Amino acid sequence: MDSATALAVAVDSGLACYALSFDYGQRHRCELEAAASVARSLGARDHVVVNLDLRALGGSALTATEIDVPKDRPPDEMSRGIPVTYVPARNTVFLSVALGYAEVLEADEIHIGVSALDYSGYPDCRPEFVRAFEVMARLATRRGIEGHPTSIRTPLIELTKGQIIQRGLELGVDYALTWSCYDPDQAGRPCGRCDACRLRAKGFAEAGVADPASR
Amino acid sequence: MDSATALAVAVDSGLACYALSFDYGQRHRCELEAAASVARSLGARDHVVVNLDLRALGGSALTATEIDVPKDRPPDEMSRGIPVTYVPARNTVFLSVALGYAEVLEADEIHIGVSALDYSGYPDCRPEFVRAFEVMARLATRRGIEGHPTSIRTPLIELTKGQIIQRGLELGVDYALTWSCYDPDQAGRPCGRCDACRLRAKGFAEAGVADPASR
Repeated sequence: MDSATALAVAVDSGLACYALSFDYGQRHRCELEAAASVARSLGARDHVVVNLDLRALGGSALTATEIDVPKDRPPDEMSRGIPVTYVPARNTVFLSVALGYAEVLEADEIHIGVSALDYSGYPDCRPEFVRAFEVMARLATRRGIEGHPTSIRTPLIELTKGQIIQRGLELGVDYALTWSCYDPDQAGRPCGRCDACRLRAKGFAEAGVADPASR
Repeated sequence: MDSATALAVAVDSGLACYALSFDYGQRHRCELEAAASVARSLGARDHVVVNLDLRALGGSALTATEIDVPKDRPPDEMSRGIPVTYVPARNTVFLSVALGYAEVLEADEIHIGVSALDYSGYPDCRPEFVRAFEVMARLATRRGIEGHPTSIRTPLIELTKGQIIQRGLELGVDYALTWSCYDPDQAGRPCGRCDACRLRAKGFAEAGVADPASR
């Protein structure tokens, strides 16, 4: 939902957008098909999926099948501490690959749908992290040292989940195409109980609309 | 050679070392077997190879077969500008994955064998890049925000290729196990003419010893 909304905001501002997804060994690989549909529906120029097997590192419930995804956590517990679904340095890795892609495309901006309000307590969703990444990126790349630094845009960072959905609906995002659940069942249905499902439900409740994917 | 020497320096200082390599679609994948031999010979606790297909992004002679690896460049040309063998944001991506691995291992340090003296002009080999990465890393991870930031160590950054080899020989590195060439022939022999081969030859000449891999 967040990536789809960030893409819609960027497309709406007239940018030529190239979508980037990661097959990182996540349990919820079905999000990659959802991402392809979203990219197509919103008019991205291209959609690239990079294989990056973070399972080799272990340490997260999202990639290690021997760690259970936590269920039924109340929102105040989500906002405290870092859960086992945290994939170590995931946004750092994703942004680094995006930085390489931006260098190849000669793109000026990377847009990422992180929110510092409604999130699961991951350190790499915070504005101070994003700003430090941008400083590092300026020194890391050919374009950066040649005077064309890559900006990291976070259009959703100050929005609640409800506000993200409202913004997306204004821009015509079809949330029926999006995927959130960390731990789908064998039939490919969302569990309804992981942090991602609960944040999604909270967002639609706040936005005052029904989730089009819940039919 | 540089990674092997950096590992030897870390092992010599008494650290428990976990080696990390990347299968990123490089032409010279044989370096991965060499890395495994080096890690074993120097006593690394483990050696993990992460699959990360940077070919999806294009843009480098090291990963795109339609771009030729430059040959026979004189050293003064190597030190000017950024060649087509530059893989966009490669060290940023590698360090980011290493940061995730450090988080899983609860490791305090990442060691990387970059040299700012004898190198191919890549922006992400410079000390200012490494320092900016370290600042970003402190904000990116659970351990960083909990007061255990990950340091990035660059034991070779002020050494010439000849000095790197001398240091490694003192520590017992078997350079016959190492691989440098970007563009091996079909029989798996080094080309002898790419930047990596030429820097290697220059290093052994400076160190005043024969390359044990040239037999």
